[in-house]
Amino acid sequence: MGELSPVFGGAPAHKPVKKQIQFVEDKQEFSRYPIKAGRRSLSRSISQSSTDSYSSAASYTDSSDDETSPREKTQVNSRGSTDFCVKNIKQAEFGRREIEIAEQDMSALISLRKRAQSEKPLAGAKIVGCTHITAQTAVLIETLVALGAQCRWTACNIYSTQNEVAAALSDSGVAVFAWKGESEDDFWWCIDQCVNTEGWQPNMILDDGGDLTHWMYKKYPNVFKKIRGIVEESVTGVHRLYQLSKAGKLCVPAMNVNDSVTKQKFDNLYCCRESILDGLKRTTDVMFGGKQVVVCGYGEVGKGCCAALKALGAIVYVTEIDPICALQACMDGFRVVKLNEVIRQVDVIITCTGNKNVVTRDQLDRMKNGSIVCNMGHSNTEIDVASLRTTELTWERVRSQVDHIIWPDGKRVILLAEGRLLNLSCSTVPTFVLSITATTQALALIELYNAPEGRYKQDVYLLPKKMGEDTCFLYILFTVNSSMDFLFIHIIILTFLIL
Amino acid sequence: MGELSPVFGGAPAHKPVKKQIQFVEDKQEFSRYPIKAGRRSLSRSISQSSTDSYSSAASYTDSSDDETSPREKTQVNSRGSTDFCVKNIKQAEFGRREIEIAEQDMSALISLRKRAQSEKPLAGAKIVGCTHITAQTAVLIETLVALGAQCRWTACNIYSTQNEVAAALSDSGVAVFAWKGESEDDFWWCIDQCVNTEGWQPNMILDDGGDLTHWMYKKYPNVFKKIRGIVEESVTGVHRLYQLSKAGKLCVPAMNVNDSVTKQKFDNLYCCRESILDGLKRTTDVMFGGKQVVVCGYGEVGKGCCAALKALGAIVYVTEIDPICALQACMDGFRVVKLNEVIRQVDVIITCTGNKNVVTRDQLDRMKNGSIVCNMGHSNTEIDVASLRTTELTWERVRSQVDHIIWPDGKRVILLAEGRLLNLSCSTVPTFVLSITATTQALALIELYNAPEGRYKQDVYLLPKKMGEDTCFLYILFTVNSSMDFLFIHIIILTFLIL
Amino acid sequence: MGELSPVFGGAPAHKPVKKQIQFVEDKQEFSRYPIKAGRRSLSRSISQSSTDSYSSAASYTDSSDDETSPREKTQVNSRGSTDFCVKNIKQAEFGRREIEIAEQDMSALISLRKRAQSEKPLAGAKIVGCTHITAQTAVLIETLVALGAQCRWTACNIYSTQNEVAAALSDSGVAVFAWKGESEDDFWWCIDQCVNTEGWQPNMILDDGGDLTHWMYKKYPNVFKKIRGIVEESVTGVHRLYQLSKAGKLCVPAMNVNDSVTKQKFDNLYCCRESILDGLKRTTDVMFGGKQVVVCGYGEVGKGCCAALKALGAIVYVTEIDPICALQACMDGFRVVKLNEVIRQVDVIITCTGNKNVVTRDQLDRMKNGSIVCNMGHSNTEIDVASLRTTELTWERVRSQVDHIIWPDGKRVILLAEGRLLNLSCSTVPTFVLSITATTQALALIELYNAPEGRYKQDVYLLPKKMGEDTCFLYILFTVNSSMDFLFIHIIILTFLIL
Amino acid sequence: MGELSPVFGGAPAHKPVKKQIQFVEDKQEFSRYPIKAGRRSLSRSISQSSTDSYSSAASYTDSSDDETSPREKTQVNSRGSTDFCVKNIKQAEFGRREIEIAEQDMSALISLRKRAQSEKPLAGAKIVGCTHITAQTAVLIETLVALGAQCRWTACNIYSTQNEVAAALSDSGVAVFAWKGESEDDFWWCIDQCVNTEGWQPNMILDDGGDLTHWMYKKYPNVFKKIRGIVEESVTGVHRLYQLSKAGKLCVPAMNVNDSVTKQKFDNLYCCRESILDGLKRTTDVMFGGKQVVVCGYGEVGKGCCAALKALGAIVYVTEIDPICALQACMDGFRVVKLNEVIRQVDVIITCTGNKNVVTRDQLDRMKNGSIVCNMGHSNTEIDVASLRTTELTWERVRSQVDHIIWPDGKRVILLAEGRLLNLSCSTVPTFVLSITATTQALALIELYNAPEGRYKQDVYLLPKKMGEDTCFLYILFTVNSSMDFLFIHIIILTFLIL
Repeated sequence: MGELSPVFGGAPAHKPVKKQIQFVEDKQEFSRYPIKAGRRSLSRSISQSSTDSYSSAASYTDSSDDETSPREKTQVNSRGSTDFCVKNIKQAEFGRREIEIAEQDMSALISLRKRAQSEKPLAGAKIVGCTHITAQTAVLIETLVALGAQCRWTACNIYSTQNEVAAALSDSGVAVFAWKGESEDDFWWCIDQCVNTEGWQPNMILDDGGDLTHWMYKKYPNVFKKIRGIVEESVTGVHRLYQLSKAGKLCVPAMNVNDSVTKQKFDNLYCCRESILDGLKRTTDVMFGGKQVVVCGYGEVGKGCCAALKALGAIVYVTEIDPICALQACMDGFRVVKLNEVIRQVDVIITCTGNKNVVTRDQLDRMKNGSIVCNMGHSNTEIDVASLRTTELTWERVRSQVDHIIWPDGKRVILLAEGRLLNLSCSTVPTFVLSITATTQALALIELYNAPEGRYKQDVYLLPKKMGEDTCFLYILFTVNSSMDFLFIHIIILTFLIL
Repeated sequence: MGELSPVFGGAPAHKPVKKQIQFVEDKQEFSRYPIKAGRRSLSRSISQSSTDSYSSAASYTDSSDDETSPREKTQVNSRGSTDFCVKNIKQAEFGRREIEIAEQDMSALISLRKRAQSEKPLAGAKIVGCTHITAQTAVLIETLVALGAQCRWTACNIYSTQNEVAAALSDSGVAVFAWKGESEDDFWWCIDQCVNTEGWQPNMILDDGGDLTHWMYKKYPNVFKKIRGIVEESVTGVHRLYQLSKAGKLCVPAMNVNDSVTKQKFDNLYCCRESILDGLKRTTDVMFGGKQVVVCGYGEVGKGCCAALKALGAIVYVTEIDPICALQACMDGFRVVKLNEVIRQVDVIITCTGNKNVVTRDQLDRMKNGSIVCNMGHSNTEIDVASLRTTELTWERVRSQVDHIIWPDGKRVILLAEGRLLNLSCSTVPTFVLSITATTQALALIELYNAPEGRYKQDVYLLPKKMGEDTCFLYILFTVNSSMDFLFIHIIILTFLIL
Repeated sequence: MGELSPVFGGAPAHKPVKKQIQFVEDKQEFSRYPIKAGRRSLSRSISQSSTDSYSSAASYTDSSDDETSPREKTQVNSRGSTDFCVKNIKQAEFGRREIEIAEQDMSALISLRKRAQSEKPLAGAKIVGCTHITAQTAVLIETLVALGAQCRWTACNIYSTQNEVAAALSDSGVAVFAWKGESEDDFWWCIDQCVNTEGWQPNMILDDGGDLTHWMYKKYPNVFKKIRGIVEESVTGVHRLYQLSKAGKLCVPAMNVNDSVTKQKFDNLYCCRESILDGLKRTTDVMFGGKQVVVCGYGEVGKGCCAALKALGAIVYVTEIDPICALQACMDGFRVVKLNEVIRQVDVIITCTGNKNVVTRDQLDRMKNGSIVCNMGHSNTEIDVASLRTTELTWERVRSQVDHIIWPDGKRVILLAEGRLLNLSCSTVPTFVLSITATTQALALIELYNAPEGRYKQDVYLLPKKMGEDTCFLYILFTVNSSMDFLFIHIIILTFLIL
Repeated sequence: MGELSPVFGGAPAHKPVKKQIQFVEDKQEFSRYPIKAGRRSLSRSISQSSTDSYSSAASYTDSSDDETSPREKTQVNSRGSTDFCVKNIKQAEFGRREIEIAEQDMSALISLRKRAQSEKPLAGAKIVGCTHITAQTAVLIETLVALGAQCRWTACNIYSTQNEVAAALSDSGVAVFAWKGESEDDFWWCIDQCVNTEGWQPNMILDDGGDLTHWMYKKYPNVFKKIRGIVEESVTGVHRLYQLSKAGKLCVPAMNVNDSVTKQKFDNLYCCRESILDGLKRTTDVMFGGKQVVVCGYGEVGKGCCAALKALGAIVYVTEIDPICALQACMDGFRVVKLNEVIRQVDVIITCTGNKNVVTRDQLDRMKNGSIVCNMGHSNTEIDVASLRTTELTWERVRSQVDHIIWPDGKRVILLAEGRLLNLSCSTVPTFVLSITATTQALALIELYNAPEGRYKQDVYLLPKKMGEDTCFLYILFTVNSSMDFLFIHIIILTFLIL
């Protein structure tokens, strides 16, 4: 979930794709010597995804009343344990409710939990995890526990933790070290607490962004002797793993979950089709019907955005330079234009190209009063937000994640999430989608943990289409009652994850 | 906005439409003697819409820290006035931001404000208003002020006030008496404060639900001698007016805004098309793609719900007894079924029939684990919620407006807004839609206020398609620059409101 | 079926609707003295619908080899009868196949036939009919016969007869007088043969366009003494009946089938949604995906055209002057434009306004090479075709119903059906739609024939929503097996026709 | 265009894909010794695509009056040449009209023609071609001529020739040997006439199905010494080329046009989205709205069919065994079912799996009266048509390509095109799609003809994404006026064909 929706295909004409790749490399350079750097540069040393905020129920319910740092508090859970560090253990009950909500739409994972829990395919597994800590992740963690694993967990992002969920997990016995609004120092401290504990040494890693893996490489390289494998989900984390592999430094097998078919199709097309609507509505209450919208980029993310907005009565234009994607846009009924042709008339601009400066200051100057600009693409570079931080423009924060940029003549442009990913910042990811990703992660952990000696080398693997028959739980799928097509779907999901 | 989406056409087979009408009458009986009743029955005496909660930004931002009743506080606004009563005048700045957001998508109203403010067609008007107090209403009120009116305002619903917006209005000089979470006593006290003030007597009424009109009839009948007219928006309020008229007791002309074409099409079809998605997403984070949904009733509301969900990849079934609507559902590609045929397989049930007990306890018993049930139709009677309040079922409030009903075997059904209107309770109404309604209200006020003696009798009027030329602002429409189709739309809106 | 899709709502600004009505009246003037007029003016004396061509299977299969006039041939059917006049009785077998195809998608009518044939509600009825003679009409006629009626039939249009079907009907014992390509003289001769026959006098009339009724009024006024009622389907025919009624000359009750809900919704919205695609494809093989199309008028016909083309990937613009329709177009996601704004860029222009000269010569001059222009609206007046018949332009007939108009610089504009109704000229009407209309006609005949003395006066009636219980076949509906929703639909259809 | 829409992805569970490949191999075995075989086996020796019929305008206009074989007639064209053999040279004028229609929607090809004709990149090329001979092919051939080539042409299918077009081509100087309804002997004779002519030896081959290439290998192997390359379009032909290549017998470079991105996306998804509607409508006049349809297979073809039918109001079910495709179907809003679950209720079955016996006799027995079954997938094997040729069932040919299969109890099932490809047999392929394929073929010919010695070996090539700069016409693309987005699309098309 590190970066949900990178679209590399749809780069605009004037920005060669090469540049984009360099950009990713540039970012990696920052992280080369994170430890040596002082506090300011440390902020660059954690992966980008770890500073993106993540909207969730928590952001509404968290009354951030208490200013004391969790690190300074002593808390005891209902089992008498103190081996965790969360905002407020008393929120456990409320967090349990959020987890229960999430379980309702994560039937693939619940199904795996129910069927494999007598087998306990993760018995003996000691998993250290570093992911967003949300209700959905909690369902994953509790599934891993049900399958026999012991877990210690930390957050991959300083803003995204749902405090209540962290409390609920801690209360049920998972050692969680995470809260919303960590400092960078907190961030690394939490990771350290997960790994560096007496009498417990991890043998599996579940990472999202690569920061946990990175920290362990730097601080506890010896631990890798016991590690059976790494499961990594994000673009950034996978990139780091490939670099390690190329440099001959990868010392355990790693599973690239990011590039699985399920993730690509779901996190991009189907997920963005819903989250573009959700994100725009929650922030601006805008009516879609009749609005003129330009979507920059017609990759999977762009396709999802366009389909949803068209369906709700918006008039949608597309900018695209890749000829195949452009032709698809045409055939799907969208006018393919240059941004400058429509910039003065559109009500909403959505970027999803995976490129830099797709919307420039010059273009922002020409947008009409009341128009909205937001980003569903890669990182926070698609809109040239920096160019808006000048003295003649007034910024007015009207809501969380919503800024009015006011021009000298009174014109307002509504900027969402300061140009960061709208779907991460201003909408929730549908639970069902996270269920599929989480199930994939669980299966990858089971596969790596149970794989016979030698099946996997010290390399980065894609999730095998056909897992071996000795993985012992293929039978799950064919015992499910297939008479109802709802279950049928889930057979399918599980089928193609492991066949 | 009293009741946004009544659909009378789509009544289920076993419930004759007659019943439905009786039901409305029953409700009115309660209000016949509201004053005599003690406190408990007073809760019935205010119109139903006045106890429906209303979701808005406020519900997230209102940190309800302060328990002191606004009635006991003395507050002074930045102009030195104390003629208002709101939660906290210090929230004015934040409320101003919300109003600015709203202005961005209310261009019809802003356009009217700009063009008519030199004319001041409401100069001398003293308007007392009783509506939801939201950012959008604020834009209406400030438009009325810009056109020359003096306004005093109160809330038509005890939960729906955005405190910040009330503060902002009070700070800018409008006498507002309203806060979120009023008691019934507060409710009538606030109304009284608006009407019963020294040195100011209203000559126009803008009502939503009829409670203000009702109170004035009971307490200050003499005031009606100066009243030039009433503008009423809700079904309930309009119904009360027609009853008054029939009984020969209506002593001023009244304008029925509820049945204007704009309101019917917008508040139902187009608005519900968006709010069904918004309401479901905010409460449950459910993914629409692949979900099986049954929509009960294929009137305008049902059509909107079906179109939106189909467009986002849900598999939608329709129940409908009216043959024309059923045939339309067929031709639009929905399978018309009986609820019992699909009750065991659907993930979501949405009622929009305008009838009672469309979903019974027996059917709720057969729904599957994790399924969602909610109401977009009339009032709160479509789902038999009362039947769920039995000892063997456990209710668990998992979020605001979201209850898990837990059966003895562990099955959970997710009930939204306790069966009240999802679009009022769990989503915001698109600002653009409110802009149209608000513009209609403003035009109705202008028309009634400026109408020559004798044009309107003591009767209930529909907004005239062709307003007289002496209303003096028809020219507005034809001076607008029509080259851009965005403006063109707004000409159209204004055109058909007054032609 | 006289004129399938008049849309009166969407008239362009500069053309007052009054004009349009005058036009209809003008036409009626021509028909006042049809008999006296010579041959040339006779061409104006038959109703407009009787000269519109009607595309059907016949147009492809009719090898028009034989130049002999049917009137000069003596033919005998397989029962030994010579009481008919068709092109070639030997084509009966092939015509029977066409009827069988049609029966497959006319289940409402077949269902009526099966259930009422033991009752014989039309026993004793002698029906003279004047409609398009197509496979679908044949199913209607054979249903009437199955219900007990005797029928004599002629064509309401000189081009629309499917010769094979006429042969099949004649062969099975119905006295049919019709063929494709009649002269005007033939047209009236055929009508006369139906009415003026020894030993048989009609007591019911089923008319489409009013020519049969007109002829009988002029030539055989005495026959009306026995006539129990007229069922009329077309706009024109209904208009004539209302004129008769107003003039006090209508001497029997008449049923207006044209304005039944079923006809309006089906013949316009749902039917045009399909026939616009069919008509364009059969004539031009054009690909819809990516094409820019402007639809003039957003009434029911325009809504159907827009929905279909949008769904298949066309980029659709709308011109509309009625503000409510325009706003609907906006909310449905179409850019509302003026025709001149897009005339140079669109690939296809479709008119459905119900007005005259919506597309002018000036605009045709500016269309781009290869663009298509056609009419789905009223009559043949929407495109100013006359203005194209000038010497500098070359007309090239490239296929039946397809002309290339070639400008001096080589630019070609493709004109379909010479501006007449595309759906009548170049596509077939879906059988299912015709089934509904035909069922309505059958029910209207049954109602009028069985109505007790005095129920219907000498007036024009709309089909009663609630037919009397004495019509004796209400039971049909409730004995149908409702377990399959396909049948359910047909219950519905029948239900709302008679309730 | 040999086989338009093979979908290999969506094979049903019980039919291993291996079988399908064996089937193709089986077919190839037949053609190993075509020459030795007698007449009966010769019918197997031509590629399957050469016996599929091909619907077109010609099928309606061809009055097949004249029974004389074209081989026995002597015809002279308007230039005095007799070097051709077509049905009737006098139809040239009518054929010219068809070509002109086609040119209107083939702007990519026309654009190439206009811009490259001064360069004459095919000067000196002598192309022998064997393709369907339709108006669209004629535009291709005349483009090749305009670019400098000399052409001799024959048909790749004994039924698909539009006689009028063949006449028009012959009249303009292209040596065409083809007519509709050739015998197998005629088929090979025509091919031979193209190749074996005095004073002219081909140096390029354009083939569709591989029959021309095959014949030349067998009869005139020496000709290949001069051949610079083969361009092949069909699945079958490409398969044959790969076999030759594997066997070391391919003696010239060959270009595989079939697997180009343009062809896959266009011929499958976008093209089938339109042709499914066209094919069903032309054959059955069925109304789509409200119909229940099951589409077997959710590959590109299935996706196109489902999208179109859903958009027009059909209720669509999908059967699919590939889990990714099944999940896509779910997310796109289609219920994924087993065929047996819905077989009794559906109105239409459409197969597009690429597999054998997807619809079995047992299932056909359970279909309801009046239901339609047709094939959009691979070859003619998806519906077990053979099982219907039994004595208890009656076949009734009701129209060209439409059979009613009648069960003993009177039930009728409507079988289209005897189970062959609906889109080839009963609809036209949109001209725009053919334009793209034809442009690809032209570019492939230009590339192979102009390629420097040694660039291409004796192997099968995919069309290079980036053609060399020495191909000399890249500039075409960047000189096009890009201000109008219609042209912009065509730049795109050309761009991605050669970049």
